[in-house]
Amino acid sequence: MIKSHIITIGDEILSGHIADTNAKWLSEKLYSIGVNTSKRITISDDKKQIKKTLKLSINNSNIIIVTGGLGPTNDDITKKTLCEVYGSTLIENKESLDNISKIFKKRGLELTKKNIEQALVPDKCKVLNNEFGTAPGMAFYEDNTLLISLPGVPYEMKSLFEDKCISHIKQKFNLPYIYQKTIKTTGIGESWLSDIIKDWENEIEEGIKLAYLPSLGRVKLRLTAKGENIDELKKKIENQVKKVLPLIKKYVFGYDDDELEDVIGKILSKKNKTISVAESCSGGNVSKTITALPGSSNYFIGGIVAYSNEVKVDELKIGKELIERNGAVSKEVVEKMAEGIRKKFKSDIGLSTSGIAGPSGGTPEKPVGTVWIGYSDNKVTKSKKLNLTERRDLNITLTTVNLLNLLRLSLKGD
Amino acid sequence: MIKSHIITIGDEILSGHIADTNAKWLSEKLYSIGVNTSKRITISDDKKQIKKTLKLSINNSNIIIVTGGLGPTNDDITKKTLCEVYGSTLIENKESLDNISKIFKKRGLELTKKNIEQALVPDKCKVLNNEFGTAPGMAFYEDNTLLISLPGVPYEMKSLFEDKCISHIKQKFNLPYIYQKTIKTTGIGESWLSDIIKDWENEIEEGIKLAYLPSLGRVKLRLTAKGENIDELKKKIENQVKKVLPLIKKYVFGYDDDELEDVIGKILSKKNKTISVAESCSGGNVSKTITALPGSSNYFIGGIVAYSNEVKVDELKIGKELIERNGAVSKEVVEKMAEGIRKKFKSDIGLSTSGIAGPSGGTPEKPVGTVWIGYSDNKVTKSKKLNLTERRDLNITLTTVNLLNLLRLSLKGD
Repeated sequence: MIKSHIITIGDEILSGHIADTNAKWLSEKLYSIGVNTSKRITISDDKKQIKKTLKLSINNSNIIIVTGGLGPTNDDITKKTLCEVYGSTLIENKESLDNISKIFKKRGLELTKKNIEQALVPDKCKVLNNEFGTAPGMAFYEDNTLLISLPGVPYEMKSLFEDKCISHIKQKFNLPYIYQKTIKTTGIGESWLSDIIKDWENEIEEGIKLAYLPSLGRVKLRLTAKGENIDELKKKIENQVKKVLPLIKKYVFGYDDDELEDVIGKILSKKNKTISVAESCSGGNVSKTITALPGSSNYFIGGIVAYSNEVKVDELKIGKELIERNGAVSKEVVEKMAEGIRKKFKSDIGLSTSGIAGPSGGTPEKPVGTVWIGYSDNKVTKSKKLNLTERRDLNITLTTVNLLNLLRLSLKGD
Repeated sequence: MIKSHIITIGDEILSGHIADTNAKWLSEKLYSIGVNTSKRITISDDKKQIKKTLKLSINNSNIIIVTGGLGPTNDDITKKTLCEVYGSTLIENKESLDNISKIFKKRGLELTKKNIEQALVPDKCKVLNNEFGTAPGMAFYEDNTLLISLPGVPYEMKSLFEDKCISHIKQKFNLPYIYQKTIKTTGIGESWLSDIIKDWENEIEEGIKLAYLPSLGRVKLRLTAKGENIDELKKKIENQVKKVLPLIKKYVFGYDDDELEDVIGKILSKKNKTISVAESCSGGNVSKTITALPGSSNYFIGGIVAYSNEVKVDELKIGKELIERNGAVSKEVVEKMAEGIRKKFKSDIGLSTSGIAGPSGGTPEKPVGTVWIGYSDNKVTKSKKLNLTERRDLNITLTTVNLLNLLRLSLKGD
């Protein structure tokens, strides 16, 4: 089994002032191509420590990915340290210099000496040209080890890794095939889900690993198989998926990279239907989630954030008495909101939210976390009550996920 | 200088399927009490590797915080491994057993053998009782090293660390005082900011460290001083802040934990003013950002997400010809939107956005990233053009930050 170490370099990570998102991303990518990360290490921009750590990793792993310490300032010492570790000297790399010049020209800035120095690379490395930034990536081959040094800026690191590194790794090492399939569910908690699929889980074929990955309002089931024959792996996993699907069909909204909002967007586009949203407690988050997707303007007409009761009355034509009699957080009001926005914006479907997001505003009858969500089309208007949490941020997200799922189920005719 | 290592244990972290939020949180906490984290290491639930890593860290640091591997399942081997490292044997801890029984009683569940085993602890450790979970924390003192083992569940780990560990650390080590102040700016890029404060930066008093911490649309300047006398440190830092403030006053929106939306909320509440928002390209994100704050219903009336041109025409009373003549992404339209929403929702101030978020929809005259933001009150209506990026997600966030800053400056009378 090919083992990798990930080394991230940076004082700001060690002081906790920035999150090390690179290491997580790299772990996931490496895993997906069949490389196990056996260790992750974060150290400071200190030559002695970098050198010691690199040497230890070179002796104990097959692949080492180093990020950070390649900037133009004096703190950035990764390149010099790599020279010492590999007995290499710095030489100018034409391709990198051209790239740096191009970037500066585009920005309308003069090249400084420090910037030109970024085109110097160790003579023993293979240069990985960085189109999105001024620090080139570097690959060192020695004995059975491949060391790749990448800049710490996440989007530069990510495109370099995807475009240039994966092929290097696959060329050098004989990697097993990995086949993964993730079933994405919503509307059911982890323990209930595990109860439903208990018998199936106990009989999963050997060599297939199952992981439960819960997040807010959603649970992912990830199946993984490693082996020599990709077609066989695929068959094995798809067979397992086929067996479990009938048990959990209602909760499955998609697979792998599908998000709830993508799935909904596809159904709406296919059915040629439009939607609009009237939001109270979710404060714009439903609209924001839907419009985060490119192309959403094809089916999303618009929304109203009806935060004050006046807006509910004036814009959504909800009777004052209805609010007085039932409260703004009620089945009656949320259904009128969904109907009101649908008619006002002339969309096929209207959605709505009204609830007590907290931390204040709760009563014994309607505690913080009480939320109503509504749906209306030209045939039916309906709603659902949710009993969520005491935390405002969680309540806003969970309201959104639940409403999108209500829409999904309604579109499917459930 | 007291040095710490943070060791997180867990296969799901190494495979990249969950983020290691514990390590970042611990780094930050340790830093704030004057302890430097010199290394962070993540390893798998593997006895040999845990043992090797612990021994190395015990020899190379003063404080070691270990998280994870304390659950009731067979994979969880941290406790057994600690016994081997410290030559200790497991004994039952009454306080832990009482705590576990209490938790199970509250949940209405029967205690299993595995759960009772969680009350077994190495005889050489000091037990840190975990009120929020079944795995007790443990502190080992040996020679000059303090090793603390904590459960991996974030909220259990955090409360144990804050309630029980900080006092242990402060008791054992003579820590310096730390004083930190963060100046938060927006509306100016890092390099321009650094240009403006260059002379000040060169003359910063010795012993004070300055860090630039850029994030989307914002740059934080963090000043840190360590020493024996907290009052002196405070005076030193406040003195530096006083000197730099006149140079960058326009860009400073707050300090330390202040967010742009908090600051605006406070000004609006104080001035007794209300706002509403008409959003196009930001798709609800401005409303969402404002309403994420508890109490925002005091000044936020509501918003309209005018995604389609029909909604702009029908709801915001923007002439069809105005859109046809100038395009929806224009000074004229965005100003009418701000005015329209202000009048419609009867708020003191109206805000608006209209732009090309991308990835498609750009033209040579108005490429992706072209965004107009608008402001209107009963005295003035104005707007600003932004040239943002090619990425939809960045454009949405940057539009929001820029609009909130336009509101902030307008409220201040700039």
